[in-house]
Amino acid sequence: MSAEDLLARVGLARVVEPGSRPLWEALQTRSATEVWAAVQAGEPLDGLGQQALDGIVTRVRASDPSRDLDTLVRLDARAVCPGDDEWPEGLDWHPDTITGDIREMAPPLVLFVRGPHDLRAAAASSVAVVGARAATPYGQEVARSLSFDLAETGLAIVSGGAYGIDAAAHRGALLAEGAPTVAVLAGGLDVAYPRGNDRLLEQIGQKGLLVSEHPPGRGVTRLRFLVRNRLVAALTQGAVVVEAAERSGSQSTAGRARDLGRKVMAVPGPVTSVLSRGSHLLIRDGAQLVTRAAEVLEELGAIGEVEAPALRGVVHPRDRLEEQTRRILDALPVRKPVSVAQIAVTAGVSLLMVQVALPELVGAGLVEQRDGGWRLTTLGAT
Amino acid sequence: MSAEDLLARVGLARVVEPGSRPLWEALQTRSATEVWAAVQAGEPLDGLGQQALDGIVTRVRASDPSRDLDTLVRLDARAVCPGDDEWPEGLDWHPDTITGDIREMAPPLVLFVRGPHDLRAAAASSVAVVGARAATPYGQEVARSLSFDLAETGLAIVSGGAYGIDAAAHRGALLAEGAPTVAVLAGGLDVAYPRGNDRLLEQIGQKGLLVSEHPPGRGVTRLRFLVRNRLVAALTQGAVVVEAAERSGSQSTAGRARDLGRKVMAVPGPVTSVLSRGSHLLIRDGAQLVTRAAEVLEELGAIGEVEAPALRGVVHPRDRLEEQTRRILDALPVRKPVSVAQIAVTAGVSLLMVQVALPELVGAGLVEQRDGGWRLTTLGAT
Repeated sequence: MSAEDLLARVGLARVVEPGSRPLWEALQTRSATEVWAAVQAGEPLDGLGQQALDGIVTRVRASDPSRDLDTLVRLDARAVCPGDDEWPEGLDWHPDTITGDIREMAPPLVLFVRGPHDLRAAAASSVAVVGARAATPYGQEVARSLSFDLAETGLAIVSGGAYGIDAAAHRGALLAEGAPTVAVLAGGLDVAYPRGNDRLLEQIGQKGLLVSEHPPGRGVTRLRFLVRNRLVAALTQGAVVVEAAERSGSQSTAGRARDLGRKVMAVPGPVTSVLSRGSHLLIRDGAQLVTRAAEVLEELGAIGEVEAPALRGVVHPRDRLEEQTRRILDALPVRKPVSVAQIAVTAGVSLLMVQVALPELVGAGLVEQRDGGWRLTTLGAT
Repeated sequence: MSAEDLLARVGLARVVEPGSRPLWEALQTRSATEVWAAVQAGEPLDGLGQQALDGIVTRVRASDPSRDLDTLVRLDARAVCPGDDEWPEGLDWHPDTITGDIREMAPPLVLFVRGPHDLRAAAASSVAVVGARAATPYGQEVARSLSFDLAETGLAIVSGGAYGIDAAAHRGALLAEGAPTVAVLAGGLDVAYPRGNDRLLEQIGQKGLLVSEHPPGRGVTRLRFLVRNRLVAALTQGAVVVEAAERSGSQSTAGRARDLGRKVMAVPGPVTSVLSRGSHLLIRDGAQLVTRAAEVLEELGAIGEVEAPALRGVVHPRDRLEEQTRRILDALPVRKPVSVAQIAVTAGVSLLMVQVALPELVGAGLVEQRDGGWRLTTLGAT
């Protein structure tokens, strides 16, 4: 992308909120440079009312894309635009794709990125792990261990850098010797929010990736979190909600993941916990229930036929027996050995049948001879 | 059903295990009286090998249906046959309906029943609540409260009388002033199994219903539990698994419920608990996740359109705002009041827009005027 176009996008990001549909519409027919020039000149964008335009004009006066780029360099960060090598795949959806009550859900215009990894490569093999800020110790432990295991298999863990589940997910991923963890922020790269996670976010900026649609210095708002959530979903192949209240940002991320055709997964918890209510509602609504990394990988289609069946139970020797033989097995006692005749009466089968079956049962390690009679082995009794 | 036919069925129940397919086949073309006479005469049944028939002959010698009926009267119990007023609906499936490794899964021949309720009426509006014997306190509490709530709405709670989840389900139902609870036993009505539940089973016999396919005095075996599970499922409109290990009897009950077209539901729990593993596998396999009585009723189709939407969240006044108005709301501080101009810059909208929106926000109880400026109310900040 040209330097001129880059400057235009940084300028537009400074004066228009992310996800703006009127801006997206304008960029369908004109270059970013042309649109930025028009916006600077106070020309209206189709679909943007005069009042909204007034707000943009207020911001244009204070904007300076060159200074923003200088600030990014100071932050050891970069601006990534559509067409750049680092621009992730899958960020070109039509705004109508996204449903719900937030109407402005166009794809990002530019991404501000900090960290020693290629965002496109990280996003190409990634999963979002998100959840409640006020998470329980249970939820945090599940988020941490799940993210660790997933990162170890090479999946980048994408989350929102918040307290609770988000922080546990990032921390689990940072511990793994695997893929980078990606924090998608709702404000500028230099705005550590929440304040208490500043060291974690700094660590992610050094070892993982910090991503934002906002120019440096921009603070967070509730709406920006909601708009940010679509990017968390869009950057990944799927989203896992670990703990969430009934009405929560995690539900919004899950909704955007569904809108964008990403897999939606949720980790269950005690039904007595309000913080598992959101997960349970998602599962009732069609999200896949997941309890461990292997199940997340299975849902993402990232593992083949070999590993998946291992999730199922092992086969007990009992399951391989014919039914008559099993009935005889059932007639055998755990402690006091019994005779062949006693077995026949209890099982309701013939003496001959018992005599045929016993060697098979002994061979399978289920029955043993003791004191002239027969009884179950430890394996047979389980 | 004639007294002769009743005696024949009691006789057959004494010598053939429940669920026998060869016996079911024989009864498709001949009366129970004819089949019983044939069995007594040592005639082979189609599909029953000579060895199995030998086992039956062993038992025929010791059988006495009249004595069994006398015993039932002493136990204050009764034998219920197909065609009787009390015979429940839905017990006439074809054996092929039931899949899995237990091949002998024909419908019951006769039911031995004890308790002051009509089994047909109880089964017509019922749900099975089953789960692990080695249940956790969490599982037992969920089973107890769920069964209490369901019984209060008039649903009979059907379970297996075992320790753990089964016992908690029966106890919860007994506490409710609602429908009876039904324990389906894997041995005779007079065989209190497990021994430690003898008082609970006695209470169910007096206030609820004890049901068995086995004649008095018959003990339990592992196979009998598995065959019994199909009856637990068949007597109900659906089965709820509360806690279950990966390989367990509850999984078998759920499988039979699915085979018989009953609803299959499961209660989730911590993913760190092995006793929720079975529930989670069931949900991953298509069972409906349920967390409370209302969701069970919804799945059974027992409640209308009115109550179901109440399960969803309430609507916050914020959700009703236009997006521009919401953006202005986001720009307002929680504590220190700010001017209209400050709001306009932070929100990136025009002064006019802020002036139009503020009265609406105040009217919705989200914003208040304080010290000549504006800030969020407690509601607005949540």
